[in-house]
Amino acid sequence: MTWADKIESAAARIKGHVRLTPVLNADGLGLDRPVALKLEQLQHTGSFKARGAFNTLLQGPVPAAGVVAASGGNHGAAVAFAARQLGYPARIFVPDIAGPAKLALIRDTGADLTVVPGAYADALAQAQAHEAQTGAMQIHAYDAIGTLAGQGTLMREWEDQGLEADTVLIAVGGGGLIGGALAWLNGRRRVVAVEPVQSACLSAAQQAGQPVDVAVSGVAANALGARRVGQMAFDLARDIPSVTVTDDAITQAQHLLWRRLRLLVEPAGAAALAALTSGAYRPEPGERVAVLLCGGNIAPDPLA
Amino acid sequence: MTWADKIESAAARIKGHVRLTPVLNADGLGLDRPVALKLEQLQHTGSFKARGAFNTLLQGPVPAAGVVAASGGNHGAAVAFAARQLGYPARIFVPDIAGPAKLALIRDTGADLTVVPGAYADALAQAQAHEAQTGAMQIHAYDAIGTLAGQGTLMREWEDQGLEADTVLIAVGGGGLIGGALAWLNGRRRVVAVEPVQSACLSAAQQAGQPVDVAVSGVAANALGARRVGQMAFDLARDIPSVTVTDDAITQAQHLLWRRLRLLVEPAGAAALAALTSGAYRPEPGERVAVLLCGGNIAPDPLA
Repeated sequence: MTWADKIESAAARIKGHVRLTPVLNADGLGLDRPVALKLEQLQHTGSFKARGAFNTLLQGPVPAAGVVAASGGNHGAAVAFAARQLGYPARIFVPDIAGPAKLALIRDTGADLTVVPGAYADALAQAQAHEAQTGAMQIHAYDAIGTLAGQGTLMREWEDQGLEADTVLIAVGGGGLIGGALAWLNGRRRVVAVEPVQSACLSAAQQAGQPVDVAVSGVAANALGARRVGQMAFDLARDIPSVTVTDDAITQAQHLLWRRLRLLVEPAGAAALAALTSGAYRPEPGERVAVLLCGGNIAPDPLA
Repeated sequence: MTWADKIESAAARIKGHVRLTPVLNADGLGLDRPVALKLEQLQHTGSFKARGAFNTLLQGPVPAAGVVAASGGNHGAAVAFAARQLGYPARIFVPDIAGPAKLALIRDTGADLTVVPGAYADALAQAQAHEAQTGAMQIHAYDAIGTLAGQGTLMREWEDQGLEADTVLIAVGGGGLIGGALAWLNGRRRVVAVEPVQSACLSAAQQAGQPVDVAVSGVAANALGARRVGQMAFDLARDIPSVTVTDDAITQAQHLLWRRLRLLVEPAGAAALAALTSGAYRPEPGERVAVLLCGGNIAPDPLA
């Protein structure tokens, strides 16, 4: 089965369980061209992660012990939500940097939540121990076929919505989202990876020729702070262009999205746009550019 | 020229100056059905008002003294923005309840801004005095053909995007938005007017048989707080169903949009949805319902 087949199957499987998220051709951002935006932060639980979570759970079979997931926060919220919708018990491990918005999303589902000191990798270790003890089904945040194929439905959907773009900018954490996009596109468009300077595991892997551990920190660490890029994503993304953006550039892009578009996203959700606004990626004249907004779970709550 | 012709002309006129705003079929809001949403808060300057402003200015001619507008805030921001884009001087009068978000939008354009104690009607009196003194072109916030036809392009666009709805819920201030929608639809769908209990000038006019003054207050007063419904809107809306919603219901709908959809709107932007979530409007089984989100200029700044 090719990746395209897996993504087609995933799209059929999750239809009706995930939202078809809107697109917007955004001018007025102070750039020299409009930018095609995909508003995936409007997905259930505020990020694209619902796609991979539903795909995996609906593929089953799910054991009596239910599911377990480790996550910077968004994947955990998505797994917890999907599990509740489908009637399975869920155990979620997140690092303390997940922050109150993501913890609230997970708690609201009634899932069993454990907050672990450290970063994503520390939560993963505990989730793996839980899997070994209980036989629960582990849903990896990015390095699993079901997850990556689910995330791949996003680019399929975007093309189905009439995407007009030569180049698509996508933020990278562990690589599930960009891996899914590359798997779907199969070279049909240029994909540019965007990573925070302070958590750039794909760039490091590209330089090393294989996935390697990196340090993670910064404003987007609870979404993009994977210590090591997934092997599946690396195999798909090893030769694509990748750029890095500073925390300042991410924050400025986040403010721009609010000020000019009334879109409120979390730092990770603004990272791909930051590559354009900071000049880290400079498109050619006439190049049509698209930016994926991937998450909106900011803290503190803007209405609190 | 019929309203439909005026709105067709307006749509051709403002094309490229306003954004084609996204739509979303929203489930997961805790209602017994999905709701078709139009995300017009993503329009330039954060509300539908850019449509009427550009339509009027592009229709011209604009005198050397430029344009003047009175507004609760959103119309003023839209006129100021459109005037700057088209190279005209703008003088804007707003009441002090406009709030910092709307004042910042107007100031950012470089328009000449006067903040008036009171509500919209007080700003209007000063704008009319300025018009008489200077010969500037007055752009009325709702009771003018150019304004109303411009706002009518919104419903035209929504239908063009494949709107599937028996009933459309629209918040009412002075009536420009709902008037434009009714003018476009010409009876093809049910339109329900939604007003805050504390500023319900359309309901009052429907009961009185003509526009009458009402008191205005409440969380949405800087957007929906018109003292008297426009005559044009009243002529179009006198027989449609209208409901009222409390400030609490508006605030709850606003929180729901953020919590479940990551859409951050101002109170007025959530008022139409509040009619559904509060039960002020109860659709029949099988009735397909659409809700127009009309504005996103909340204060304080959620990123400040």
